[in-house]
Formats: sequence, C-alpha cells, structure tokens
Amino acid sequence: MKITTRVLYKDTDRAGVVYYANYLIWFEMGRAEFMRSAGYSYDELEKQDYVMPVIESFCKYHAPAFYDELITIETAIREINKYKLTFFYRIYRQTDEKLLAEGHTIHASTDSHLKVRMLPESLINRLQHCNNSK
Amino acid sequence: MKITTRVLYKDTDRAGVVYYANYLIWFEMGRAEFMRSAGYSYDELEKQDYVMPVIESFCKYHAPAFYDELITIETAIREINKYKLTFFYRIYRQTDEKLLAEGHTIHASTDSHLKVRMLPESLINRLQHCNNSK
Amino acid sequence: MKITTRVLYKDTDRAGVVYYANYLIWFEMGRAEFMRSAGYSYDELEKQDYVMPVIESFCKYHAPAFYDELITIETAIREINKYKLTFFYRIYRQTDEKLLAEGHTIHASTDSHLKVRMLPESLINRLQHCNNSK
Amino acid sequence: MKITTRVLYKDTDRAGVVYYANYLIWFEMGRAEFMRSAGYSYDELEKQDYVMPVIESFCKYHAPAFYDELITIETAIREINKYKLTFFYRIYRQTDEKLLAEGHTIHASTDSHLKVRMLPESLINRLQHCNNSK
Repeated sequence: MKITTRVLYKDTDRAGVVYYANYLIWFEMGRAEFMRSAGYSYDELEKQDYVMPVIESFCKYHAPAFYDELITIETAIREINKYKLTFFYRIYRQTDEKLLAEGHTIHASTDSHLKVRMLPESLINRLQHCNNSK
Repeated sequence: MKITTRVLYKDTDRAGVVYYANYLIWFEMGRAEFMRSAGYSYDELEKQDYVMPVIESFCKYHAPAFYDELITIETAIREINKYKLTFFYRIYRQTDEKLLAEGHTIHASTDSHLKVRMLPESLINRLQHCNNSK
Repeated sequence: MKITTRVLYKDTDRAGVVYYANYLIWFEMGRAEFMRSAGYSYDELEKQDYVMPVIESFCKYHAPAFYDELITIETAIREINKYKLTFFYRIYRQTDEKLLAEGHTIHASTDSHLKVRMLPESLINRLQHCNNSK
Repeated sequence: MKITTRVLYKDTDRAGVVYYANYLIWFEMGRAEFMRSAGYSYDELEKQDYVMPVIESFCKYHAPAFYDELITIETAIREINKYKLTFFYRIYRQTDEKLLAEGHTIHASTDSHLKVRMLPESLINRLQHCNNSK
C-alpha cells in the first residue's frame, strides 16, 4: 500500500536533509493508513483495548530526502500471528522513484495495561488479505 | 529561574538554525523546572488531577540559535490567579548572554476532563514565593 | 486557502491531545501550501536567496485535537509589505468544523545571511491576489 | 559513557509513554556527548568537513519510559574503521536501572557532499581510547 507525504522544513536538519528519526514517523503514517485500508483504524482498535506497542524498529538509510520533496511510503506486512505483527516499509522519492530508506517495525499485541492480548482472527485475516491484494 | 540545555541536531532545520516550534519545547522545559523548584512537579499535580493546558503561546525570535550551542532558559511567572497562570520566558545563548527569543504561555487550570478547577492556594503561594526569590 | 492533515500518534502527548508546539508545524504546512498555490514554492524562493525567517509566532488554543482526527488548516495573509509578511491561521476539526486554534506568524524578508532583502513586487502581488481569491 | 536526560511532555504520546522515534533522539544525545568526551565535538568535525550520516538505526524496546522520569543514556563504540562507525546504546530508567531500550546506529564517513572521506587516524584512536576507559 502506498501513500504520499511531503517533506516539511521541520523534518530537515542543518545537514539540509531529513533527520533520521523522522523516517520512523513516516513508518507510523504508513502503517496507520495500511490498517485503515484494511478496515481497522488503529484508533478503533485502541478503543477495543487492543494496543500494538513497537518492540523493535529498524531502518537502513540509502539516500537523503530533501525539503519539499514528495515522498512515497510503501507499507506491507511481513509476518503476522496472534502475538506479533511485523510491518515492512520502503521510502521512495516520488519524482524518480529512488529508494531512500527501508526498514521494519515489530509490534506486540497487548491491552492498554501492556498485558499480552491475542490479535483477533478477523483482524489477522483482513490484514493478510489486504497485504496480498496490494 | 534559569536552566541550561544544548541544541541538538534534531532541533535544527535546513536553514542551519533551531526550528521555530522547538522554542516552545524549551518553554516546556523551563516551566517544568520552575514548578519542580517550587516543590510541585507537574507530574505530581496531574496525579492530583490538576491539569494546566496551554491556552495561548507567544514567541518573539530575535536571533537564531545554532547547533551545539548551550542555551539558557529563564522562566518566571508573570501573572497567577486561581484560574490562570502566565509563564514568561527568555532564551539566551549561554556564552555571550545574547537574547535569542522571548515569549509566554498562558495556562488554564482544569481537571483531567478539562473542566475548570481552581488552583490550590498553597500552590499559588509557593509559585509566587519562588518567583520573587529568583 | 485550506488544506487537510491527519493527527498522528507522534503529534499527541500523554494528555491524549495534540502537543501545543505541533500547531506551529501545522502553520508551516499551511503557509507552504499557500505559497505554492500562489506559484512560489518556498523552496524556489530560497534557491533565489530569499529567506523568510519567523520573527514572531502566536497561537490561541480553543479546544484539543485528538488522535486520528482530520484537521483543516486555513491560511491567509493578513499583512504584507516589502520587509514583512504576516500569515494568519485557523485550525479546525474537519468533521464538525469546530475551531481548535488560531494564530499568526510574522516573517522578515532576508537573504541567506539574514540580511534584510526586500520581497520582490511580483511575489507581493501574487500573494495578495491569491489571498483575495480564496 | 553515561549521560542523563529527563522525559518531557513533548516526548510522550497518548499511550502515556515515550514515542518510539524519540529514542533515536536520545541516541543522538548519547553519541554527541561521547564524541565531546573524546575531545571531538561533532560540530567541530563538521567544520573540518567530516560528516557522519546515519546509514542504519536499530532499536529494541523493552519497557516504556514515562513522563518526568530521569533516563540514563549509555553510549559505546562497537566497531570503528576508516569508513564506518557503529555506536551502541542502552537506555535505562535512572531510579531502578531498569533497561528500557537498546540499539545501535551505523555512520558512514563522508564530506559535506556525502562523498566517502576516511576518518582521521587520530579521531579513531581517541574514540577507541575513550571507549575502553569507560
């Protein structure tokens, strides 16, 4: 699933490029829209007391992103079971489709007290379906 | 009351200076330490169901702050009553005491449901005392 | 001129609402798109050595913004001359058009060394034209 | 090498814990102070046209950090050669020394145009010395 965002001034640092931690914010944008497209907004999940805290993040930075560029965020599920969900991301510059970064986040499935809570079967199915069709 | 912080890379933007919104984070650092020095950490206040949401922020930017500079954050109370609290801030470069920015934030006093809740007399007194002695 | 953005998790704080400094980022989004709609992206202006540093920011916070809400950013020019430009912003919740915040930023016109540099007449005209037509 | 920082409101998200991308900012704080303690502030390095862009970041999140907690950032060098530098970080809660997160960043050595530039022998030696003595 692909979405587009634009590099803001606040995203950049004095090296003139996007600061490295901000790619993790793009990852958040990607997975939020992936889940929405599967019919489960993360907000609604939390209202049903499903929380998906990040337990691991990884990013490889291939080339810098610059101010005002349009950025493509591609999100997919790499692995999913009742206890854990791994999203995989690729960040491209939109104009020339140059790959700028790629990475993943792993999420546990808990309740709001951070106690393990199995992901519902229906959610797993929907996310997998969504993943295959995109 | 004065505290010191250092400009991080993440604070800067591609103009090579600190991004304008980040001064409001320095304001937060300033008022948190002001309150702690008065014996009321903001965290404890919230645990007693006092919330102090910002209802107004203002900042005048006089000169840019650069990467790795030590910054002095000076915080004072300008006005306080049972319903409202105004903090005033001055941001200096530490080495030459050049004034970089100044501004204020106004805070309402509410409970965690954002309903008006009067500030306790004891807190007002302590903050005023603290303000006069620094 | 109006644009839309969505509240991210990273925008929120532990009070469950958007952190106050992040409204200034929405202001940046608003003025960047305003300028683009007038035919002058801020990026291109900087490439011609026009820099528009913020010299004042102001924001009144009327009601909190929550996670995942769609937010409308309305941007207009309030004052413009060769030396200074004031943008005015209103932030709404999209669903019910509730006004959440409003404020302004004042920008000087300088070159990249922060020396005063008069805004070109053509830019002033285009921005004013844009302002009236929206 | 260990430094201390305090969790700000702006670091937290609506789950009431520190947002995952902000650990990468703590990593930046850690490596900046590590380098300073070795006698090479990152700022000075850049003035000599050495840039050390992040090419990989990794973080494992073990337990959440909460508002107002004092956080210990422990930084060490895991690997260093003329072309690459790997910092390793551990994030603790200061009061009980609970491990909250750990991770690494890998940095290339380039000039300001992002062309490969070998790290000076003297810097490598100093950083290694610093690493062993702490």
